[in-house]
Amino acid sequence: MKRILIQLDSDSLPSTFDRVVAVDAGADELFSYGGIAPQNAEPLIHGGMFTRKPSDLKNTAVFIGGSNVAAGEAILTKVLKTFFGPVRLSVMMDSNGSNTTAAATVVAISRHLPLAEVDAVILGGTGPVGLRAAQILASQGAKIRLGSRTLDKAAAACEHLSKLVDTSCITPCETTSPAGFDAACQGANVLIAAGAAGVQLIAAAQWQAMSSLKVAVDLNAVPPAGIEGVDMLDKAKERSGVTCYGAIGVGGTKMKIHTAAIQQLFESNDKVLDTAAIFAIGQSIG
Amino acid sequence: MKRILIQLDSDSLPSTFDRVVAVDAGADELFSYGGIAPQNAEPLIHGGMFTRKPSDLKNTAVFIGGSNVAAGEAILTKVLKTFFGPVRLSVMMDSNGSNTTAAATVVAISRHLPLAEVDAVILGGTGPVGLRAAQILASQGAKIRLGSRTLDKAAAACEHLSKLVDTSCITPCETTSPAGFDAACQGANVLIAAGAAGVQLIAAAQWQAMSSLKVAVDLNAVPPAGIEGVDMLDKAKERSGVTCYGAIGVGGTKMKIHTAAIQQLFESNDKVLDTAAIFAIGQSIG
Amino acid sequence: MKRILIQLDSDSLPSTFDRVVAVDAGADELFSYGGIAPQNAEPLIHGGMFTRKPSDLKNTAVFIGGSNVAAGEAILTKVLKTFFGPVRLSVMMDSNGSNTTAAATVVAISRHLPLAEVDAVILGGTGPVGLRAAQILASQGAKIRLGSRTLDKAAAACEHLSKLVDTSCITPCETTSPAGFDAACQGANVLIAAGAAGVQLIAAAQWQAMSSLKVAVDLNAVPPAGIEGVDMLDKAKERSGVTCYGAIGVGGTKMKIHTAAIQQLFESNDKVLDTAAIFAIGQSIG
Repeated sequence: MKRILIQLDSDSLPSTFDRVVAVDAGADELFSYGGIAPQNAEPLIHGGMFTRKPSDLKNTAVFIGGSNVAAGEAILTKVLKTFFGPVRLSVMMDSNGSNTTAAATVVAISRHLPLAEVDAVILGGTGPVGLRAAQILASQGAKIRLGSRTLDKAAAACEHLSKLVDTSCITPCETTSPAGFDAACQGANVLIAAGAAGVQLIAAAQWQAMSSLKVAVDLNAVPPAGIEGVDMLDKAKERSGVTCYGAIGVGGTKMKIHTAAIQQLFESNDKVLDTAAIFAIGQSIG
Repeated sequence: MKRILIQLDSDSLPSTFDRVVAVDAGADELFSYGGIAPQNAEPLIHGGMFTRKPSDLKNTAVFIGGSNVAAGEAILTKVLKTFFGPVRLSVMMDSNGSNTTAAATVVAISRHLPLAEVDAVILGGTGPVGLRAAQILASQGAKIRLGSRTLDKAAAACEHLSKLVDTSCITPCETTSPAGFDAACQGANVLIAAGAAGVQLIAAAQWQAMSSLKVAVDLNAVPPAGIEGVDMLDKAKERSGVTCYGAIGVGGTKMKIHTAAIQQLFESNDKVLDTAAIFAIGQSIG
Repeated sequence: MKRILIQLDSDSLPSTFDRVVAVDAGADELFSYGGIAPQNAEPLIHGGMFTRKPSDLKNTAVFIGGSNVAAGEAILTKVLKTFFGPVRLSVMMDSNGSNTTAAATVVAISRHLPLAEVDAVILGGTGPVGLRAAQILASQGAKIRLGSRTLDKAAAACEHLSKLVDTSCITPCETTSPAGFDAACQGANVLIAAGAAGVQLIAAAQWQAMSSLKVAVDLNAVPPAGIEGVDMLDKAKERSGVTCYGAIGVGGTKMKIHTAAIQQLFESNDKVLDTAAIFAIGQSIG
């Protein structure tokens, strides 16, 4: 029986990136749809639920993607509501690569520090990847300083996360004022830059002055780097005594996690591969 | 040579239901198109006609679907006009599952009564499935009472059917007035409910009072049932002395017919799998 | 590793013709997109570039098609700009079959005359196929009379071609006036009709009076023929002492070239199969 992956993409043209990874992960047939929103997803899911015997449903799965992460979350919510009882399909959500990137980031950090000892400052922490990295780190007992332009935005992001994870270990921070920025970074042993593409978030002199810093991860793939002095290709590269990763350096692990997640979709018909589940896959890969 | 199925769907997103069945029936490649109307179907058919040698054309076929049955019929008409001489492709039309559902309904009835002895009342008889069930039953020598809200609508439906089959055995009936309803049901040995989803068409007391009734088929898959007291899962289930079928009980046969029809498309390049042809497939499956 | 072809089509529904040929040429997976323009092509190309290792990129390729040849050219330009260094994919452009048809036309002529001795009049020479046939013939040392309704249009087409090939051997001609028409044809040994579908460009008496004429190719597949008296099915058919080809007669070679070109896409990741490269493939097939 052929493994069918139903790709629901919130962009008008379904991502070729996600399609190639799906093919290489072993999906036999891709049903790729663009322009998907919660209101048009239901019949597509019904068609997957009602065509094969319950014992065969593990061979039909759903992938939710697209550049708009909030749109992907809304589709996932709708898809999960469409299932009933055992008549369901495994689903993975990775809009804009947010879950696989956040998982790969934390996996990279875990190679150098026990996660329970991590005290991380996340710059651009309220974006999709920053939020997810914070969620994963919090679930592993780490401390997190969630940085944003305003304290209100940072606090709202923490409030959002509190529905998913114990956020007592997350401190919202504003990083616009020099004093706020310094306070956010002071004493952190991990630095993550998860801001918009092509925006520098911290100067070389600033992070080199953080005496406690052990690991720095820059997720920006468009020059200039978010963390000045970190190269896109850095992969556990030692710089000024700090272990550095760039976007491409993290990308290999991200791709392995994405591929393994697609493969897990076809092991049973009840997987929900969200942020936490995708990180668990990342941990098993190492 | 790979078996290619060109899926022309009148809905904007081509049905995943039809795609999964096509894959499981052995189509190697699906070219799935949404938003199809007669005016944009022609170049898609030409591309199928002019790419392989005549002797190989049986490996390229066309499936017409979508939720709008009239739209599917218009596409089928256009597709058949596009062919010329032996340069043609096999085609199946099953918009909204109307042909396979009607065929499966009559196949179910035929397990319990010789079709020539059937005297069926069809409630909601002017919808796509009701019309097609009437057409198939008429072709097999049964008597049919075609029920609708008004006599005019029922008569218009009979007029439409008269282009496809001898309708001398079909009586149009209005089923809105209590007297009309009773007259339509009086003496029938088969009851088919083919109305809109989630609308009850006959109460339990009413059909249980039909002393001649032998078989009842409810095609409604959304509660409440069209025939009160019949369960969606009923499959030749005895209830008050009547053999009952629900939508899912008929669904297994419907799926087998759909699958077999897709497979037949690839046996030659000149099949036209419309209502009659799809019922013939249903009969051969039994 | 599966061979993936990303089909970028400028029409809203991607061509089934190009899809069937791609399947039969051995592409394992087709990612077919309609409604493509330069502005939405980039992320689709990025997804192809960044998902497989450089050494595996030869298994991902791009086909550009659609009925609008200028739109296809603009997409090709954008796609080539999107690549950088060795991170690239092989690409073929054949909007409206223009490159494969022009190549097949010249291959057909070369069976009967050395190309360096060809002196061809191209009627409808400013359309996509006429232009490309002129380009190919010029590259092989032939003389060309490029016919158009006005001399200005013909001259503008030559100017366009001068960016691609040495056009000193191409003479722009107006073919509207009887005198212009006669001058354009006088002494030519090859006649190509590459005008709009269903429009006769030259009467039988006119070409039969061309005493120098050896080969006539009519590329019009919709009656009436562009060259009166040539049949669509003609394939090296002798008529009044002239070797004649019709659209379908050239079509077999066109199809072989198209198929071989798709196969070459997957031999390395750096092919650009444009007019010249597609003709080279045609020559190797013969």
